[in-house]
Amino acid sequence: MTQVYNFSSGPAVLPRDVLLTVQAEMTDWHGSGMCVMEMSHRGKEFTQIIHEAEADFRKLLNIPANYKVLFLQGGAHFNFSMLPLNLATESSAVDYVDTGHWSRIAIKEARRYAKVNVVASNEDRNGTYVPDEASWKRSDNAAYLHYCSNETIGGVEFQHTPDSGDVPLVCDMSSNILSRPLDIARYGLIYAGAQKNIGPSGMTLAIIREDLLGKARAGTPTMMDYQVHAAADSLYNTPPTFAIYVAGLVFKWLLNNGGVGAMEARNIEKASLLYETIDNSNGFYNCPVERPFRSRMNVPFRLADEALDDAFLEGAQAHGLLQLKGHRSVGGMRASIYNAMPLEGVRALTEFMRDFARSK
Amino acid sequence: MTQVYNFSSGPAVLPRDVLLTVQAEMTDWHGSGMCVMEMSHRGKEFTQIIHEAEADFRKLLNIPANYKVLFLQGGAHFNFSMLPLNLATESSAVDYVDTGHWSRIAIKEARRYAKVNVVASNEDRNGTYVPDEASWKRSDNAAYLHYCSNETIGGVEFQHTPDSGDVPLVCDMSSNILSRPLDIARYGLIYAGAQKNIGPSGMTLAIIREDLLGKARAGTPTMMDYQVHAAADSLYNTPPTFAIYVAGLVFKWLLNNGGVGAMEARNIEKASLLYETIDNSNGFYNCPVERPFRSRMNVPFRLADEALDDAFLEGAQAHGLLQLKGHRSVGGMRASIYNAMPLEGVRALTEFMRDFARSK
Repeated sequence: MTQVYNFSSGPAVLPRDVLLTVQAEMTDWHGSGMCVMEMSHRGKEFTQIIHEAEADFRKLLNIPANYKVLFLQGGAHFNFSMLPLNLATESSAVDYVDTGHWSRIAIKEARRYAKVNVVASNEDRNGTYVPDEASWKRSDNAAYLHYCSNETIGGVEFQHTPDSGDVPLVCDMSSNILSRPLDIARYGLIYAGAQKNIGPSGMTLAIIREDLLGKARAGTPTMMDYQVHAAADSLYNTPPTFAIYVAGLVFKWLLNNGGVGAMEARNIEKASLLYETIDNSNGFYNCPVERPFRSRMNVPFRLADEALDDAFLEGAQAHGLLQLKGHRSVGGMRASIYNAMPLEGVRALTEFMRDFARSK
Repeated sequence: MTQVYNFSSGPAVLPRDVLLTVQAEMTDWHGSGMCVMEMSHRGKEFTQIIHEAEADFRKLLNIPANYKVLFLQGGAHFNFSMLPLNLATESSAVDYVDTGHWSRIAIKEARRYAKVNVVASNEDRNGTYVPDEASWKRSDNAAYLHYCSNETIGGVEFQHTPDSGDVPLVCDMSSNILSRPLDIARYGLIYAGAQKNIGPSGMTLAIIREDLLGKARAGTPTMMDYQVHAAADSLYNTPPTFAIYVAGLVFKWLLNNGGVGAMEARNIEKASLLYETIDNSNGFYNCPVERPFRSRMNVPFRLADEALDDAFLEGAQAHGLLQLKGHRSVGGMRASIYNAMPLEGVRALTEFMRDFARSK
């Protein structure tokens, strides 16, 4: 296979250097004679791996000491239930911002466990923007305020952190964590499925302020109690050891490449190049998302002539530009350009896009 | 590193051929140009991977068509909660056999959701046997009967399938699934964490009879409803794709090596060799488990002189015999000899054990 660029929305492209390290260490991790997959999660080798992964992750996001980092399973979906079960009672008001598909799934699950108040929704303009914070209709005594910082399907991204005052701010950061610097102290809880900017699927990271632990309601399944995982340093049961190992290598790659500040600069450059190509195509391509809210991670776009969609995808595939088909719920195209997507990949895509448009 | 043999109880040794395949395919799976970790779980490549994995698993255990196979997350622990939430009501009687550590964790979690009746316990003889089925004090109308077919820590294994009559039989088979043929039709539900005989940690398999689906009680977290996963063919959310891929390779390795019948013969040979070495050591080593119930997978043993434990472990390590320390709750030694442990590994261990005993 010649060089390919993989624009999957997740599981998604990983840094080439990370894959080469995984390959080199496959049958013998650091002279242990074992593959990481074969190690006891309580042995000294894996203890070193998970400790380094956590330390590097803390360094990358400058996580304060009063926050716990948890390596969980089950994806964001698991946290959609954990959140109200741990941070609210049945009679609590919980505030949610609705900015698209993933917000709505979180809202739907929360309605089963608490009184959900949707403070604002972008459905009126077909999910193409982030409602102005000043217009949000917040509850007086919300147990928390939840939002999704980047809608992977809609391609809508918050460019700032909302001000929740004294109410714990909770964020589903699955698709843009580690793509820019963050002020963790403004959050109560952040959770993120790994399979976009962190590592393999099957692992989920949570960052939780310690005072929010230990409040799970009666009947919460043990595996859904944040405190259980915090008290056991993420080893309450066997964690997804190999996924944690790969994530740890991704963290080292990020540190070696300038950290999240350098990633942000790179991500702005990549996203700008792609959006300019769309906007300068004389309408051949269009992106429905309003400019201030366009995601740096997931770029949905359409061809004005939908009849050309299949030819576009086939041509892209032939040029080694993979997994560009849009989500089944919206159609069109989507290019996901996470940290691990090199600038050269976006250049190759935009060149193909211009050539394809010219040829029609 | 020279040849090592890894006796970890889980995550555990994987077939060498499987690791070499994973290594060879790391940056380019079957000409796709992608690592399996980078593939969309809804793309054609991963669809092929998960379909083949399920088909091979069904072939290995001869799973009838009216059973669903589910690829889940969260380990056996997750199922400890799912089980009563899906198959019982708060007022249901649920029957549990207590044969050790893992039985008791399942029982503890079930008590939070239903009326647990412990039909029998082996605590009276320190967890060293399986109570005779004729003595079990079963409920009149149990929603199910649960047992753990192999206690990984105690080293106690059922050598037969209990007769539960019309009551759905549920089994935690985490540490001996695929080690011998099974009559699936006698079970309602089987679940197993992958990290012993299946593949990497972070993935859990369930085999569930279709008539038991769709009965989750109100308030069950969506991710804990077996029916949700069954209806979505294990793709309700992003599954642990890489773990499923590795498990699929293990299934092919098993099929290529004679299937579970051949594995059983090999496992009997390995276990017999190890138990004979212990029993013929003139008391230098001893295994507390009563003979008819000794596990073919996990062999706990002690040195009569505990003061020699550290020297034994150091000597073993120097001979490339790894992770032999017993579980922190019981001490002593434990050799886990799953399918992927070759006979040569058990030979090397027994030779070392004889030499060590002679040298003292």
